[in-house]
Amino acid sequence: MTYCVGVLLSSGIVLGSDSRTHAGVDNFATFCKMTVFERPGDRVVVLLSSGNLAGTQAVIGVLRQRGQANSGNAASIWTARTMFDVAVLVADAVRDIELRDGKHVSTSDSPFNASFIIGGQIKGEPLRLFRTFAEGNFIEAGSDTPFFQTGEAKYGKPIIDRVISPSTTLSDAMKCVLVSFDSTMRSNLSVGMPIDLVCCERDSLRISFRHRFEQGDTYFSSLSKEWSAGVRTVFGQLPPVPLHLPQTAQSFHVPPPTIKPTT
Amino acid sequence: MTYCVGVLLSSGIVLGSDSRTHAGVDNFATFCKMTVFERPGDRVVVLLSSGNLAGTQAVIGVLRQRGQANSGNAASIWTARTMFDVAVLVADAVRDIELRDGKHVSTSDSPFNASFIIGGQIKGEPLRLFRTFAEGNFIEAGSDTPFFQTGEAKYGKPIIDRVISPSTTLSDAMKCVLVSFDSTMRSNLSVGMPIDLVCCERDSLRISFRHRFEQGDTYFSSLSKEWSAGVRTVFGQLPPVPLHLPQTAQSFHVPPPTIKPTT
Repeated sequence: MTYCVGVLLSSGIVLGSDSRTHAGVDNFATFCKMTVFERPGDRVVVLLSSGNLAGTQAVIGVLRQRGQANSGNAASIWTARTMFDVAVLVADAVRDIELRDGKHVSTSDSPFNASFIIGGQIKGEPLRLFRTFAEGNFIEAGSDTPFFQTGEAKYGKPIIDRVISPSTTLSDAMKCVLVSFDSTMRSNLSVGMPIDLVCCERDSLRISFRHRFEQGDTYFSSLSKEWSAGVRTVFGQLPPVPLHLPQTAQSFHVPPPTIKPTT
Repeated sequence: MTYCVGVLLSSGIVLGSDSRTHAGVDNFATFCKMTVFERPGDRVVVLLSSGNLAGTQAVIGVLRQRGQANSGNAASIWTARTMFDVAVLVADAVRDIELRDGKHVSTSDSPFNASFIIGGQIKGEPLRLFRTFAEGNFIEAGSDTPFFQTGEAKYGKPIIDRVISPSTTLSDAMKCVLVSFDSTMRSNLSVGMPIDLVCCERDSLRISFRHRFEQGDTYFSSLSKEWSAGVRTVFGQLPPVPLHLPQTAQSFHVPPPTIKPTT
């Protein structure tokens, strides 16, 4: 499994990914799921991968090779005019790999399956955030839903739902993404550290902050501990269920048989 | 979808269920998913149903009929000697219905699928909590994992993980189950109010508390609001990500091509 999050704010963009891959509980490993294409002052594009590792690595490999200078004038992430065009390039690469590998792995336990969160900014455009599906189609985040999650998204969604809006600060959004990872990792062993986190301020056209939070990271550990303690404190302060509430349950109450059957 | 929770504590047991059923977003309804078999002083058995509604209702129907006095000495929930035997009776009923209906609905959009959380106490035994699977096999909760969830379990699991242990008070466990429902309903439209909640104190051999929390319930609304505000306050007090952290991300950084391709 995987957990990736991208958050689009008025002031910038925050992207985070875990790095656990596994094929069964006795076969897990660490692979970075974040790829950064950066030409400072011109563009910064961050891809977060989820799905079958051979598939996502192949897609990234194709995107890299298509971007190399000696590939001539072919469209690439380095020449794309807009983030929409970047999303189209990612989708094309996904479909090319599916065409090449799909039929060979369709009956395996791990068929081809690659989806991406794509965030960043190209000079002349605002920051944008996309999410591609396994089929290669994609959607873009907006102010109503300013974030995307892929992989094991449910455990970590409630805190994002409660905290994130377009006006959230970059600092709060980074904290929120890390708390979301903490909740996910507590409940699902297939999502694991290290966590890669990057942040790009609006119009900076470069990575503003990047850090890999390794197992035992001092800040992450204290965040996790303080969050846990704080949540328990809030919980303790909530009013207890009033025991004088009317016993109104419409639950299906089965009366005992009038004559007790002989046992 | 459905969300049901059962929590086994030293001091009692707490069980809660939502009541939304649906077959597509334009076809949803309210059905109680909680069934209570109670003969005060002798036994109290609570069943929480999840799965296909026709299937779970059929199972409950069979269990009720088998418990009627005129069914003679046949084994039933009213005559079972232990909660283990109750779980076996539920499993038998599940398998009987599957045998009768399974082949007729196997290719439908909603094939036979019924699982149950079973909690309660029979005189002479301690409180016990079971969870049956669709196949009819089942597991029992213990002090290491004193709760079961069925249905849409993920959104509401983090708070249960943080709060519940066998020594949690009944009052805290009821509150925790309701907070867990609140988190679930915020994130999944297919889980909906009213919520049926019951609690049985240890050795009382009867329902100690029962309430149906309807949409707009005063206590539930204030719990939801205070929890949301409290969580946001705790979040706000967490230390910000230190921006001087070393830029150690091992993320795959793709350098731009040395010669900028002509565009």
